[in-house]
Amino acid sequence: MPMEHIFRYADRVYRHLNDEGLLLGSVSREGRFNFMTVGWGFLGVMWRMPCFIVAVRPSRYTYRLIEDTGVFTVNILPKGMEGIASYCGSVSGRERDKLSDLKIKASKGVKVDAPIIQDCPIIYECVVRYKFRLERDRIPRDILTTIYPSDDLHTLYLGEIVYTRIDESRVDLL
Amino acid sequence: MPMEHIFRYADRVYRHLNDEGLLLGSVSREGRFNFMTVGWGFLGVMWRMPCFIVAVRPSRYTYRLIEDTGVFTVNILPKGMEGIASYCGSVSGRERDKLSDLKIKASKGVKVDAPIIQDCPIIYECVVRYKFRLERDRIPRDILTTIYPSDDLHTLYLGEIVYTRIDESRVDLL
Repeated sequence: MPMEHIFRYADRVYRHLNDEGLLLGSVSREGRFNFMTVGWGFLGVMWRMPCFIVAVRPSRYTYRLIEDTGVFTVNILPKGMEGIASYCGSVSGRERDKLSDLKIKASKGVKVDAPIIQDCPIIYECVVRYKFRLERDRIPRDILTTIYPSDDLHTLYLGEIVYTRIDESRVDLL
Repeated sequence: MPMEHIFRYADRVYRHLNDEGLLLGSVSREGRFNFMTVGWGFLGVMWRMPCFIVAVRPSRYTYRLIEDTGVFTVNILPKGMEGIASYCGSVSGRERDKLSDLKIKASKGVKVDAPIIQDCPIIYECVVRYKFRLERDRIPRDILTTIYPSDDLHTLYLGEIVYTRIDESRVDLL
């Protein structure tokens, strides 16, 4: 897919990022799916590749999964499904099977094993190409105090977008 | 400015990023302005702040400037000014005064000392809040060969967008 098309609805992706959040899909080595809600992230270009950067704290179940399998998906939920984001943002996949709780249909991505939610008008499938671990002594003091009181510093995963699905008939639901 | 507004024309920002590039403005300690053209970068949210990430190689004049002053601007050129991007992408500010060569009017930003080009319909002013230095042994081999034959590894500057100017009357020129 041409780069231009991948970014075509970037304004809507950011609206969701800043509102109810996006659903970050990951998968365990055994093929178990998980989703977490993210409100931070970056869409852009690096090394001539379209990329999505996500930030995950080591305490998260998703962290273990991305470390193990090196893939993730970013799913932008349509109107009416916002409840899924708030649920996935408040419960850990270690304790609950969120998909079964929510009765969402998720399936393996087209190019990666991480899960996608078919009802989402925009889905990015990503392969981790680089990771940045935040270093405590480089983080501004005000951020350390407010965001990292417990030292659970994010790792940023630079994912190459290897497949993008945009359902043009449903982007108006974003 | 509300986060939503900052990202309102993100689709157009990416169109330019992937086409002629964006103009990255920086300033020396002595107040000398410089611009370079960038085709790689990320718009997003981190630490609850709107951010722009730019990637700069240490060999660039811009690198020295951002290291010294910790600020930069991202200027999205309107149609008809694409030549500026190609000139600023091919000449170093060490050897030439690009602004005088091009007869562009640049002025100090509203919130930062780095320069802005008033004719640009969208301008982001940024303060560096974190920097990531790429580490050679974490870079995928195919990228090392094609992008880093001379080992001039990018530093990524995470800039908080402290001021955004969107000239609504001129966004159609993007």
